[in-house]
Amino acid sequence: MTIREMLEGTWTGSGIGSYPEVAEFSYQERLRFESNGRPFLRMEQHTTGPDGSPLHTEVGYLRFVANGRLELVVAQPTGIVEVLEGGAEEAEGGVVISLTSLVVATTPSAKRVDAVQRRFTLRGDELMTELWMDAMERGMHQHLESRLRRG
Amino acid sequence: MTIREMLEGTWTGSGIGSYPEVAEFSYQERLRFESNGRPFLRMEQHTTGPDGSPLHTEVGYLRFVANGRLELVVAQPTGIVEVLEGGAEEAEGGVVISLTSLVVATTPSAKRVDAVQRRFTLRGDELMTELWMDAMERGMHQHLESRLRRG
Repeated sequence: MTIREMLEGTWTGSGIGSYPEVAEFSYQERLRFESNGRPFLRMEQHTTGPDGSPLHTEVGYLRFVANGRLELVVAQPTGIVEVLEGGAEEAEGGVVISLTSLVVATTPSAKRVDAVQRRFTLRGDELMTELWMDAMERGMHQHLESRLRRG
Repeated sequence: MTIREMLEGTWTGSGIGSYPEVAEFSYQERLRFESNGRPFLRMEQHTTGPDGSPLHTEVGYLRFVANGRLELVVAQPTGIVEVLEGGAEEAEGGVVISLTSLVVATTPSAKRVDAVQRRFTLRGDELMTELWMDAMERGMHQHLESRLRRG
């Protein structure tokens, strides 16, 4: 089974967000990786707060390129786009996908984000997602961590 | 009625693509602008060739910011992200939205694109979309033009 096939589907669960000068918050997440048969997955994420109100959403494409390399492009309604590159390795009894931003660009009215790192740890029907960011000149810190299950 | 309300919905129709050193091609397009009540629209586009096979798809968010300005962020599975800025004006018996790229960034394995301009001309239930790009060092040329109808 390829990593593309292992990721495909809808993942749901909960997460914790934190960042310097931001109060810790919890959220529910729905993350969908969808294939149209081509060598990429369309990724769409939605999070909601404890009261069910929408918090964050983002869309993008995870590209499976030569030599086991992965590329991810993401757009966010907060006015942020990301270009990330990385790879996957077997570890911790599963597969770990690590991606580092090559470019983070923002619209004129968006908050400043300088760099992002994302990690997906896949063990069967369990997916852990982690995101670190260097935003608003506060340095690279973990921002999000969620534990999702298939379905 | 706001421009956001005027755009919201699903638009379908056909288009013509061209570019220097690329044979002219025709396509069918489905373009959806979707609201979740916040001051942006989620944009998702799919095009197919004459035989119904998928050609292109992209996702992004059109942001309605202060002073009538518009911002658009787009991600494409070809490894391209765009950040565009512009505005809307009444013209040609409708509304014309013009957007120019501030940033176009590409993954290491993607084709080079340096700049993009997009225009949406909205007249009631008719939407014309136009896209110009400066790609692969060939200069700024019109690449796409489609005429869509609501529904």
